[in-house]
Amino acid sequence: MAETSAARVPADLLRAFAARAFERVGLPAPDAAAVAALMVEADLSGADGHGIFRLPQYVRRIRGGAVNVRPDIRVVRRSAATALIDGDNGMGHLVMKRAAETAVDLAREAGVGWVGARGSNHAGTAALYATLPLRHRMIGLCTSVASANHMPAWGSAESLLGTNPLAVAIPAHDEPPVVLDMATTVVSYGTVKKHAQRGEPMPEGWMVDREGRPITDARRSGEGFLLPIGGYKGSGLAIVLGLLAGPLNGAAFGRGVVDFNNDDTSRADTGHAVIALDVERFAPYEAFTREVDRQVRELRASERLPGVETIRMPGEQRARRIRERTAEGVPLPAALLEQLDRLAADLGVAALPR
Amino acid sequence: MAETSAARVPADLLRAFAARAFERVGLPAPDAAAVAALMVEADLSGADGHGIFRLPQYVRRIRGGAVNVRPDIRVVRRSAATALIDGDNGMGHLVMKRAAETAVDLAREAGVGWVGARGSNHAGTAALYATLPLRHRMIGLCTSVASANHMPAWGSAESLLGTNPLAVAIPAHDEPPVVLDMATTVVSYGTVKKHAQRGEPMPEGWMVDREGRPITDARRSGEGFLLPIGGYKGSGLAIVLGLLAGPLNGAAFGRGVVDFNNDDTSRADTGHAVIALDVERFAPYEAFTREVDRQVRELRASERLPGVETIRMPGEQRARRIRERTAEGVPLPAALLEQLDRLAADLGVAALPR
Repeated sequence: MAETSAARVPADLLRAFAARAFERVGLPAPDAAAVAALMVEADLSGADGHGIFRLPQYVRRIRGGAVNVRPDIRVVRRSAATALIDGDNGMGHLVMKRAAETAVDLAREAGVGWVGARGSNHAGTAALYATLPLRHRMIGLCTSVASANHMPAWGSAESLLGTNPLAVAIPAHDEPPVVLDMATTVVSYGTVKKHAQRGEPMPEGWMVDREGRPITDARRSGEGFLLPIGGYKGSGLAIVLGLLAGPLNGAAFGRGVVDFNNDDTSRADTGHAVIALDVERFAPYEAFTREVDRQVRELRASERLPGVETIRMPGEQRARRIRERTAEGVPLPAALLEQLDRLAADLGVAALPR
Repeated sequence: MAETSAARVPADLLRAFAARAFERVGLPAPDAAAVAALMVEADLSGADGHGIFRLPQYVRRIRGGAVNVRPDIRVVRRSAATALIDGDNGMGHLVMKRAAETAVDLAREAGVGWVGARGSNHAGTAALYATLPLRHRMIGLCTSVASANHMPAWGSAESLLGTNPLAVAIPAHDEPPVVLDMATTVVSYGTVKKHAQRGEPMPEGWMVDREGRPITDARRSGEGFLLPIGGYKGSGLAIVLGLLAGPLNGAAFGRGVVDFNNDDTSRADTGHAVIALDVERFAPYEAFTREVDRQVRELRASERLPGVETIRMPGEQRARRIRERTAEGVPLPAALLEQLDRLAADLGVAALPR
């Protein structure tokens, strides 16, 4: 649905609504507020598929007993620059926030911190946690085992891999930070679903069926699977990122992954990894961030291909969305608003004010 | 040229030959041997474009004064888990070997080690350094600013980015280690050159010209540039990996990159980053590597697309090549052998024995 047909909802109202819902299903107030804040941060940054849109699903899984609302999230192993966190099956946002904060703490002392997490759940977009170290003048990296398998290994016809994302956030000076947040598939399943809703055809190269033939009718997406970027390269990237986020931390991977879209009762045991890197251990912070500015500007000002209006740097659109949506509110399609109203009624909490 | 038409040369003869050449142009004997060993390791693993094939070019750049044959490679900054290495414009192999060894040392103490390098040069394939930590029961990651710019940022018509590779190496138990070594472009420039030599057409999606039109005649490759994997995603990946390997360490990036194929006199100031991660800080080594075996086998045994004979895991072909070439020798095309003979005559060193 185009943004023009969507109502604008101020971020603070969205946060309060999500927090109400989470408290109602048993999260302690500070945890409810923390998850709500991260979900709305995703909405503000334009990651619509990872924001308030997920609330009904999260509530469903909490009510189904799949997620622990009072987890004891704790560091189970620690060394000078690494930590392993057991999320005790809590909301992924809480686990990953703790992981990113722990990585920053480690990096403050040791220069870099690598934190793995297990016993977690869907945590929204990886950029939320890769960008957390930016506030501490650090670089952030984040990867996860995705919460559903939609991609086969290259050559396979069985989806045993997820879109396992990689997010990298690098601070700049006057420019927005360089923030890459990419799935290892050509498109996300959310994008396919949007095409199905709108009845729009998909280009070849997004999905194939079990015979390897292109699927261009998005309504047929259930018959096939997503393709990796760069063929065997994206497949290999999903495998290595998945092994680092999953099995290394004792978390699920491959056949062990629960499809959280279609299962409200099973523990997901999602795994993540987050790295914080202290810029000052390599270069003076100001000199480095000014050099990032300079490089970004040179790339942006380079000669353009015919028909290209602007060359966009990773994170540029994100920064613009955050500014615009913080000022104007988050656009929510009517169908989503109705869904949230039904959720409010169902939970017996106050609906989103109009 | 197909391997069938190539002569097989035992690895030790190749190593001795490369070492002779490097000593002849001024490298101390231990350094000459170290570079030769890493180059031939690339050949053994199947990375033909990063092995002995590069010797004439390396010698040319050394003779041209572009590379320092007696560098003082040193750690200029160090913290508990990070180090910054100045390569003093030495051969990239020496700088990266030191960087990877330093990362392992740091990880042994702190759990993880992140080492940046500047003042380096072309170091062969990133997998050489990502796999070094494997011997220490560690995971390795490596990235570099490529030694030539062949790719524009997404939407741009000016090649200000390289194929900036990412290599990740994860130990297994009985299976070969999982080793991903990927460029951020769909194919390497070397692959394009091979197609040009053979007069074979390239598929669409590899290169475009300055108008954005596909180039399928590889002999026209000079008129265009390589395309990134996944469009803007591969472009973004090349940017963030490049910033981490280059500017963070005070090394070249963007317009500052020297095309080492066409310049025998300019200092390249190549940058790299290498990470070692100690498995035992997260999981018992044996349990983890057995789980990697299990996951790799499940992926490999999954249902195949029609026409697919085997599902290959990252690093599988590499391991097979190492076994086979260690036993049978490295296949060298006749044209390359002739080139190496001319180099030997030119340098006044003994040629490769036949």
